[in-house]
Amino acid sequence: MKVMTKIMFFVLTTVFVFGAAYAEFAKPEDAIEYRKSAMFLIAQHFKRMGAVVQGKSAYDKDGFSVNSDVVAMLSTLPWEASMEPGTDKGDTTLSSAVFDKPVQFKKAAESFETATAMLASTAKGGDPDSIKAQFGQVAQNCKNCHQQFRNK
Amino acid sequence: MKVMTKIMFFVLTTVFVFGAAYAEFAKPEDAIEYRKSAMFLIAQHFKRMGAVVQGKSAYDKDGFSVNSDVVAMLSTLPWEASMEPGTDKGDTTLSSAVFDKPVQFKKAAESFETATAMLASTAKGGDPDSIKAQFGQVAQNCKNCHQQFRNK
Repeated sequence: MKVMTKIMFFVLTTVFVFGAAYAEFAKPEDAIEYRKSAMFLIAQHFKRMGAVVQGKSAYDKDGFSVNSDVVAMLSTLPWEASMEPGTDKGDTTLSSAVFDKPVQFKKAAESFETATAMLASTAKGGDPDSIKAQFGQVAQNCKNCHQQFRNK
Repeated sequence: MKVMTKIMFFVLTTVFVFGAAYAEFAKPEDAIEYRKSAMFLIAQHFKRMGAVVQGKSAYDKDGFSVNSDVVAMLSTLPWEASMEPGTDKGDTTLSSAVFDKPVQFKKAAESFETATAMLASTAKGGDPDSIKAQFGQVAQNCKNCHQQFRNK
């Protein structure tokens, strides 16, 4: 099974099951901590790739690829926790727009998952220009979603 | 590619690259937050499986399987952040034993990764007794490592 297929399989099955059977937080604070944790991990690995893309760190094909795999897998996690009712209150930057526009939020989340899966696939190829372009797509997805669904 | 092979491939390549090229935290607090984030996510998904194993939640093969996949993937993450020098100080429960016994720590981490990968594989089979037994193995790994390397 090719890597792209492998990751997409994981992404698709995860999203499907999350949608069907998964709202399982003991308390709202757990949902908030859950999505913050996932986002913090994503940000850490994203920054490492960003440093490479910006020429601040040396490009290492295997290292970059692992970072992109980790982000692709983590990208499936934050959404159920972001749709827990009432969790736009408290120690969070989640915008209430998530609850006003759930269809758009899910679309933005899926777009991010697809972009990170594509980056993981592109990273396996090892072509710096393609990687840089797809990294830009992921960054654009971060920005788009944050503009709509994250408070400053 | 079978699921077990797929997960083991991810685990093994990740561990290999982490070992080779990965200590990249801007500051010690980031390493601490990183491992706490990974452990929080692991704990959330572990609890969901625990509730099923204990009969508190209904068994759903696909749902359990996704939880076990997520834990297997997350299980590869916390270790590099746990071996960052000096990060046994501060807002953390990491024991300095990690730095005194790095070989044993790595062995415990690898044992946990293997146990979670086995659980992900077992979960695909859908046999409740086998799943319960392997879940117990994962729990035992948590306990063993925490006893040695986590402060109360």
